[in-house]
Amino acid sequence: MKIITLTTDFGQADHYIACMKGIIFQLAPAAKIIDVTHMLQPHDVVHAAFVLRQIFDHFPEGSIHIAVVDPGVGTARRLLAISYEGQLILAPDNGLVTLVHRDFEMEELRAIENTRLFRPEISTTFHGRDILAPVAGHLAQGMAIENVGPTVDQLEILNLDEPTATPAGGIEGQVLYVDRFGNLISNISLADIDAVAGDAIDNLSVHVGPLRVGQLHNTYADMPPGEIVAIIGSTGMLEIAINQGNAAEQLRAAPGTVIVVR
Amino acid sequence: MKIITLTTDFGQADHYIACMKGIIFQLAPAAKIIDVTHMLQPHDVVHAAFVLRQIFDHFPEGSIHIAVVDPGVGTARRLLAISYEGQLILAPDNGLVTLVHRDFEMEELRAIENTRLFRPEISTTFHGRDILAPVAGHLAQGMAIENVGPTVDQLEILNLDEPTATPAGGIEGQVLYVDRFGNLISNISLADIDAVAGDAIDNLSVHVGPLRVGQLHNTYADMPPGEIVAIIGSTGMLEIAINQGNAAEQLRAAPGTVIVVR
Amino acid sequence: MKIITLTTDFGQADHYIACMKGIIFQLAPAAKIIDVTHMLQPHDVVHAAFVLRQIFDHFPEGSIHIAVVDPGVGTARRLLAISYEGQLILAPDNGLVTLVHRDFEMEELRAIENTRLFRPEISTTFHGRDILAPVAGHLAQGMAIENVGPTVDQLEILNLDEPTATPAGGIEGQVLYVDRFGNLISNISLADIDAVAGDAIDNLSVHVGPLRVGQLHNTYADMPPGEIVAIIGSTGMLEIAINQGNAAEQLRAAPGTVIVVR
Repeated sequence: MKIITLTTDFGQADHYIACMKGIIFQLAPAAKIIDVTHMLQPHDVVHAAFVLRQIFDHFPEGSIHIAVVDPGVGTARRLLAISYEGQLILAPDNGLVTLVHRDFEMEELRAIENTRLFRPEISTTFHGRDILAPVAGHLAQGMAIENVGPTVDQLEILNLDEPTATPAGGIEGQVLYVDRFGNLISNISLADIDAVAGDAIDNLSVHVGPLRVGQLHNTYADMPPGEIVAIIGSTGMLEIAINQGNAAEQLRAAPGTVIVVR
Repeated sequence: MKIITLTTDFGQADHYIACMKGIIFQLAPAAKIIDVTHMLQPHDVVHAAFVLRQIFDHFPEGSIHIAVVDPGVGTARRLLAISYEGQLILAPDNGLVTLVHRDFEMEELRAIENTRLFRPEISTTFHGRDILAPVAGHLAQGMAIENVGPTVDQLEILNLDEPTATPAGGIEGQVLYVDRFGNLISNISLADIDAVAGDAIDNLSVHVGPLRVGQLHNTYADMPPGEIVAIIGSTGMLEIAINQGNAAEQLRAAPGTVIVVR
Repeated sequence: MKIITLTTDFGQADHYIACMKGIIFQLAPAAKIIDVTHMLQPHDVVHAAFVLRQIFDHFPEGSIHIAVVDPGVGTARRLLAISYEGQLILAPDNGLVTLVHRDFEMEELRAIENTRLFRPEISTTFHGRDILAPVAGHLAQGMAIENVGPTVDQLEILNLDEPTATPAGGIEGQVLYVDRFGNLISNISLADIDAVAGDAIDNLSVHVGPLRVGQLHNTYADMPPGEIVAIIGSTGMLEIAINQGNAAEQLRAAPGTVIVVR
């Protein structure tokens, strides 16, 4: 019983996801299909790369992850099968794996080209259904990865901003992701902060744009409801929240908003 | 292990869907329940008919599809069990199966009337939980379809607009469905277009309302980002899209908007 | 094959739910995970208590229900494992089980404190993933409930308004829940109404705020489309609806709006 996860921007009102699942079950009746999310912002590869990275190390060895945010569908962009530490990702070659690729060791990289695995008719606009779903179905049934196509030696990696040192000895990063609660998840890790702060971690000052948030706390509830708080969140990254409130709305922050730690 | 799919307008915030699933699992612990969508427009039977048609031939033989958009719940409208080419649909008799019925061969049509299969107490407003879920559970456990109730010889079919020939030798249809990306899926098929165009398929001109879209392309990315494009989409129907944009919003189009091919 | 349900306010766009599922599958590969909803209003424990109550008696014995609406995450609030009539709830001790607790017999109440069951690193903000998911995984694999931690003798119960008798011999309650269709589900049960009405149930008059709805009907379609109707809904509670319309929008009603039966 293989796990196949789906991470897409297909939404939840249309037939697209169920079509993919039906195709998978035709080939692999015992597969366990897990919806990661289908509510990625349409065509937003960075959003997809973040979510794929977050879930990746929570799944058991042997899991197959299909990720489809694919503005280049129907063009010459390739579809890839990439294994990292015993798990497999099937995705268009558009940078979707950037953050997994940064943090895990790649074991195998192949282009998906074996048309005998595909559906008999391939649309130009829905390769998730016509190519990735049947390929995942075959893999879940035990087909070896080398059957998907030839090894290749390059893949697209997004050029994401990394946090940088500030002249004053601090660190400047930005909001990478806003979650349902309006929490601002930054690209600044605990390790980044440790490098800046050393023993002085209680003297840190966190800033969102022009606003001084204050020092680092342990959890949302260290501040009263409605108050802003900076913590190391469950992703291991610096996170700005409002206890029981919505930081993104109240601070008018969004992906790209500058975060500084002094 | 039987597949049971759910296609409803129940939304995702309420308890309704989980109640149905719990009832199914009480009877058929090994069933595999697949959510097609619960975000159908409330009471919109046409929307439901479209989605049910799209997913139908993607599922394996033996699948059971529960579809519930049921403005007439509690009235004398019947509940039906209808088999088409080895798959079964359980749904109210309100036209929900119109497009599956048009495209697949019906094998058996029965009214669901065997109250011994139902929950002990039947609400007047939630037959999905009280009737269809337990009936599906029994069927998934191997009960023969004739146990649900007597054969009947009529079912409700929606009177949907079909594309028509224009005096100038073209074809006029309309937008049938708008998906999450804002793509306009029409009721004009490739076969309809072939009948009009013959060898002149490169000289076609596609129009959305008063707007000339241009000729037929292969995929969204045949036009630059932000540009409008007409293609045969993944449903096999003429589709109007904006590459990496939202055609419904930008063209102010919706189900019913006229599409003409000249 | 154990059923584990998830009822949360985590939304559907983020990675949170998939992280929990991955952790569960690492420990209990054959578990059947059912999403009840992740669209609870953020931090709204009353909403969660209602949904948990509605689904509870639809699931088979042995089911494990994880419920997470947890504004106090990271504080000293406890996490509880509570069994009622053969099913188990894992949830923060914040009143989430109030309505299940009112209606079902509690069999066992334990604090979740056995850190050997938890993930190696516990975040301060995501105990659903770090504590409840692995505990549920172990329980689904057959671990006895006494391993989660010591029995305790108190749990938090919400102080919810109950319907009251009016001086004129009627009953006054309020809207408890608004569903996707805009139906107003009240806290007045059929038993409450029977106590008021006795044999005179056809002479009842139902009021939403200042508006007289009229007598009790059987189903939405007892009134023409667009007309307001009072019924006993599928939850067994008095419900105000507009046939094929949205009562909450048209009557500007919300949780807390007063409902009176005379």
